[in-house]
Amino acid sequence: MNSFGHRFRFSTFGESHGKALGCIVDGVPAGIKVDEEFIQNEMNRRKPGKNQYATSRKEGDKVEILSGVFEGLTTGTSISMIIFNENQKSKDYSNIKDLFRPGHADFTYYNKYGIRDYRGGGRSSARETAARVAAGAIAKLMLNELKIDIKSGICEIDGIKASKHDFDYSKTSEIFSLDKDKEQFQKDAILKAKKEHNSVGGVALLNVKNCPIGLGEPLYFKLDSQIANAMMSINAVKAIEIGDGIDAVKEKGLYNNDEIGSDGFKTNHSGGILGGISNGDDLNIKIYFKATPSIFLKQSTVDVNNNEVECELKGRHDPCVAIRGSVVAESMMALVLADMVLLNMSSKIENVKKVYN
Amino acid sequence: MNSFGHRFRFSTFGESHGKALGCIVDGVPAGIKVDEEFIQNEMNRRKPGKNQYATSRKEGDKVEILSGVFEGLTTGTSISMIIFNENQKSKDYSNIKDLFRPGHADFTYYNKYGIRDYRGGGRSSARETAARVAAGAIAKLMLNELKIDIKSGICEIDGIKASKHDFDYSKTSEIFSLDKDKEQFQKDAILKAKKEHNSVGGVALLNVKNCPIGLGEPLYFKLDSQIANAMMSINAVKAIEIGDGIDAVKEKGLYNNDEIGSDGFKTNHSGGILGGISNGDDLNIKIYFKATPSIFLKQSTVDVNNNEVECELKGRHDPCVAIRGSVVAESMMALVLADMVLLNMSSKIENVKKVYN
Amino acid sequence: MNSFGHRFRFSTFGESHGKALGCIVDGVPAGIKVDEEFIQNEMNRRKPGKNQYATSRKEGDKVEILSGVFEGLTTGTSISMIIFNENQKSKDYSNIKDLFRPGHADFTYYNKYGIRDYRGGGRSSARETAARVAAGAIAKLMLNELKIDIKSGICEIDGIKASKHDFDYSKTSEIFSLDKDKEQFQKDAILKAKKEHNSVGGVALLNVKNCPIGLGEPLYFKLDSQIANAMMSINAVKAIEIGDGIDAVKEKGLYNNDEIGSDGFKTNHSGGILGGISNGDDLNIKIYFKATPSIFLKQSTVDVNNNEVECELKGRHDPCVAIRGSVVAESMMALVLADMVLLNMSSKIENVKKVYN
Amino acid sequence: MNSFGHRFRFSTFGESHGKALGCIVDGVPAGIKVDEEFIQNEMNRRKPGKNQYATSRKEGDKVEILSGVFEGLTTGTSISMIIFNENQKSKDYSNIKDLFRPGHADFTYYNKYGIRDYRGGGRSSARETAARVAAGAIAKLMLNELKIDIKSGICEIDGIKASKHDFDYSKTSEIFSLDKDKEQFQKDAILKAKKEHNSVGGVALLNVKNCPIGLGEPLYFKLDSQIANAMMSINAVKAIEIGDGIDAVKEKGLYNNDEIGSDGFKTNHSGGILGGISNGDDLNIKIYFKATPSIFLKQSTVDVNNNEVECELKGRHDPCVAIRGSVVAESMMALVLADMVLLNMSSKIENVKKVYN
Repeated sequence: MNSFGHRFRFSTFGESHGKALGCIVDGVPAGIKVDEEFIQNEMNRRKPGKNQYATSRKEGDKVEILSGVFEGLTTGTSISMIIFNENQKSKDYSNIKDLFRPGHADFTYYNKYGIRDYRGGGRSSARETAARVAAGAIAKLMLNELKIDIKSGICEIDGIKASKHDFDYSKTSEIFSLDKDKEQFQKDAILKAKKEHNSVGGVALLNVKNCPIGLGEPLYFKLDSQIANAMMSINAVKAIEIGDGIDAVKEKGLYNNDEIGSDGFKTNHSGGILGGISNGDDLNIKIYFKATPSIFLKQSTVDVNNNEVECELKGRHDPCVAIRGSVVAESMMALVLADMVLLNMSSKIENVKKVYN
Repeated sequence: MNSFGHRFRFSTFGESHGKALGCIVDGVPAGIKVDEEFIQNEMNRRKPGKNQYATSRKEGDKVEILSGVFEGLTTGTSISMIIFNENQKSKDYSNIKDLFRPGHADFTYYNKYGIRDYRGGGRSSARETAARVAAGAIAKLMLNELKIDIKSGICEIDGIKASKHDFDYSKTSEIFSLDKDKEQFQKDAILKAKKEHNSVGGVALLNVKNCPIGLGEPLYFKLDSQIANAMMSINAVKAIEIGDGIDAVKEKGLYNNDEIGSDGFKTNHSGGILGGISNGDDLNIKIYFKATPSIFLKQSTVDVNNNEVECELKGRHDPCVAIRGSVVAESMMALVLADMVLLNMSSKIENVKKVYN
Repeated sequence: MNSFGHRFRFSTFGESHGKALGCIVDGVPAGIKVDEEFIQNEMNRRKPGKNQYATSRKEGDKVEILSGVFEGLTTGTSISMIIFNENQKSKDYSNIKDLFRPGHADFTYYNKYGIRDYRGGGRSSARETAARVAAGAIAKLMLNELKIDIKSGICEIDGIKASKHDFDYSKTSEIFSLDKDKEQFQKDAILKAKKEHNSVGGVALLNVKNCPIGLGEPLYFKLDSQIANAMMSINAVKAIEIGDGIDAVKEKGLYNNDEIGSDGFKTNHSGGILGGISNGDDLNIKIYFKATPSIFLKQSTVDVNNNEVECELKGRHDPCVAIRGSVVAESMMALVLADMVLLNMSSKIENVKKVYN
Repeated sequence: MNSFGHRFRFSTFGESHGKALGCIVDGVPAGIKVDEEFIQNEMNRRKPGKNQYATSRKEGDKVEILSGVFEGLTTGTSISMIIFNENQKSKDYSNIKDLFRPGHADFTYYNKYGIRDYRGGGRSSARETAARVAAGAIAKLMLNELKIDIKSGICEIDGIKASKHDFDYSKTSEIFSLDKDKEQFQKDAILKAKKEHNSVGGVALLNVKNCPIGLGEPLYFKLDSQIANAMMSINAVKAIEIGDGIDAVKEKGLYNNDEIGSDGFKTNHSGGILGGISNGDDLNIKIYFKATPSIFLKQSTVDVNNNEVECELKGRHDPCVAIRGSVVAESMMALVLADMVLLNMSSKIENVKKVYN
């Protein structure tokens, strides 16, 4: 259950304070040029310690490819990548060894497994998402061959919403803000919460251009259901919208239905998906991240013996997980699309014949 | 891809205007008493033609069990159920045979497969969800053995929100409304839209009581990610929230974190899930259905040769799919939980030993 | 676990003495012409009651397609097929209701599930294989589009081995014998065992011509490992050989290695598979069926309370299951190859581009 | 497709001459004591370079656990293990860079993927099986908790068969011979072939004691079909027998049927499996390995441009792969059984209740 995907599939391993984390990516077609610098750049976008809006844990997050690539090309065999942990401070966690941090997975992991690596949340830590970004970079290399283009940005922090969605701007923003006019307010909100030892939530927006028509396998591997699955598997995500999402629910049928002309769809309320299958229009997805549960305020909790205790965290944490989370969401989108691209290949017998004749 | 679930798994077949639809349910533990009346009652809750708030298509939706049950008990082998279609009116669709209804899967199915059964949407029709309810009834029979209790209701229609959530009341409401004080307004909104040949959206709320701690398999088969997956696979669903959902994103960490006392969690902002694993508290999930795309107003579209044409639907359709959709959502929740219950059995070696010693 | 295959996947249901049995076939590319007569002919090759070398149970084994086909073409959606049981004689089994037939699955099903449908073996009956042949016929329709040709025959019965392998002759033989000079001896052996209320074993040979190079997914979905999986899932199969099989083990490396010339392989000891991937040469597979466990001689056994009792079967059984089993093996081969054909489509990025550009 | 298993699942990566190989083992119940010395001992049984009957490539095959274990116990999260390659001699392969070795996967990998790592066979090398043994060791640690005991040995080399099967003796034999009276003849055969630059085949026997009744999931995840799948996925395996196997086919039904007394089965022709489910008796399985294809004699082949050329191998190879292969077979058996143990947990509702109440 540490694997995701069907034909383009990855499996991850590793804990926050273990030796290393990494992944195996399986089902990658042979012959794709592997640009290691690109992969590392993807890692760098997510990596911690870059500025005051993220945790101060410093990790190089240097990825090493161990297999599946030969002379710069994918070989069709399983690609393994490893990232060594460098900057753990496990003693920060000694005082919470036996208690359950509110809002964290401590309680549930302990009850489910009867044991947990308490250091930094162990396997439940968002540190695991580094492996997703590495796997996602491979997915992107494949999608690039088909010119499918995925972008992400932050459209809301602490209730402060972007008025415009400028994906070029977000690339350069320290907080990946989509709206340079709102960016400073959003930054201020983060720093204010941080100063108060609290944290804030945020919303990421994903946009996919040049998505082929036909991605998504009905009925239980629909494009939107797999996107929902992927996004909700990211730490701290509590809601997801496709296209107009919740707003669509308030509208009448006539409004929501995207009329079609000979040049394509006239509107895009659907978010580019109809009946679980991509319709060729842009995919638009919103992902909602709750505020980081790791805060530096006193909270009531219990210990492993169910004694009531006070919890006071140490350690280094992101005041707003949505920011780095948006990079992870982008990676997960790439991974979903790569899988869907391969799955859709056999939808018609004429495509099967194209490959074999 | 017409299958869902890992250990408790179902597969469906059937089109809106085909001979029959049905399912195979696999992985059901042996020895569960099969109450056929209960299964039929579940079907009846979803079935069309009951009142003016639903389509007038009349289907008995009588389920017949073909295998997997012997002398009233499940045998551990695959359970097959079949529902014959009785009240198709395929000629209603003759005028849309070659064009793509806005808001429907016509366009995407045609492009993906190069062929489609245009009658009633074929496989993309919500009629398929009858098979899900049959499968869900088997899941519920299993969950009943563990006293896990799932309820659903409608908390919003056309923007009219419930002020209270009375799951007993919703059972008796024709539109499954959770708030009897809002019910009439909601009904009026539906009928008004219907009269205008339009349609409205709605929101379903799911509540699960007595959910064991520990359900959900990290990292890519989390309880919340599988619920999102399941719900987004239902026709017309455009958004999903876990617990406080979008509201959680506007709150600070301190607020969202549910503190723990020796009697359990003091609040339930999380919706009963932490780190993708159930925490023993109630599960609370909201599912957003867009307005039915099938409306009886003129819309612009193209035909299969990309000529611009006007689309005017005939046929019989729900003015608000959220209502019957809420029953499907409840069934999907049962199916997810049944799967998670079985998957979680091997989380600890001590549980493995319990079964084998 | 009543499903087989990854991309081209089928699921079966039904018991020997239940109402019906059938299957759902999933992942079938759209646009394949569905020749219902061909499907029925496949069923007829396996069906019981045709001659004295098979059980006298008379079943029409008429297949009805319930979904997934529209105007004679596959639509890409799940194809469901159903076969109603017509000629059960459940009372034949009343005397063995509480005891375990030696050589049968009675003992293991009862212990595993705590309940079993004792009538005709229930789910463990070879009657289930009718559903495999129906699914296999769909697979063959797809393979026909690529000119992949699968043949089968019987090469040994009761130790009497074929000296030649004439797949044209076997089609016309009542016992699918590959050697018309040995056929009468094989028939005599069957009838002699039948007269003595005993049964005999047999060996089926499979040959595949025009198999594309490249089928088989290393390392754990190799072509040979999936063939072994598929064949061993057939009732009464106890051994399987790929190519020279056991004989290969007695030879030196130099002999076994098939040398290659510019026209292809010079010999075919490998059975057409190297490193788990088809090499373009003929696939040759042998499958060993033990003698039917259902015999009409007294045998010692126990009942469900572990009392020692004598078992005396009634009912109607094949004196040699290998014969009809060879048709099932051919169907399973088709199902494996159909799956492998689809899986292999994405082995190279250039093939991905062929489909999308 | 580099993964095996359903609930207890492993994925492997790595090439013969790459940096490292390894695996992720998923679905391991929490709370199992991890004896690292035991794991290394398992590796040592398979590792090359130990004596003249194996390749002279020297690999320490030191396993490092990277995740999933905390304070000596499994945590229920994914266990990753890595083995660095130390003793590659890639230049041995420079002369075969562009040609296809007869009997090897070179031809098929090249044709399937359009690219291959030619050094030592790359991913198709038996070196990959080191990762299986590491994963298998984890499986054994779990099976030990249930007292399930797996043994293996060599029962035939170059046609020289063991007359007795002494699994205690085989542990101490350099060639894992089951019969000390035949061992020297078998050794001589190996060395003779080696001297002649040729190779020999061999047969491994597996025996499992104390296997619980009920393992195996009908119909397409039967115990025997999964064993066949697992074994046939091992390099050079060309045939597999369950119980009496091919001999069973020559016998009548009365002989093959294992009669049952109140103390259990009176004979074990079935190999401990009935209807695809373990019956509580010993599992007995035979696996047939062809002679190593890597021989040092001239052979005809073609190069990547289909020019006819002579192939003359250099490098270091096992003269008989069955020997080290038997350890891999034992590991694969452990991995199959571990999976089956977990899958079978939910066969009865009473077992589900045992875990949840």
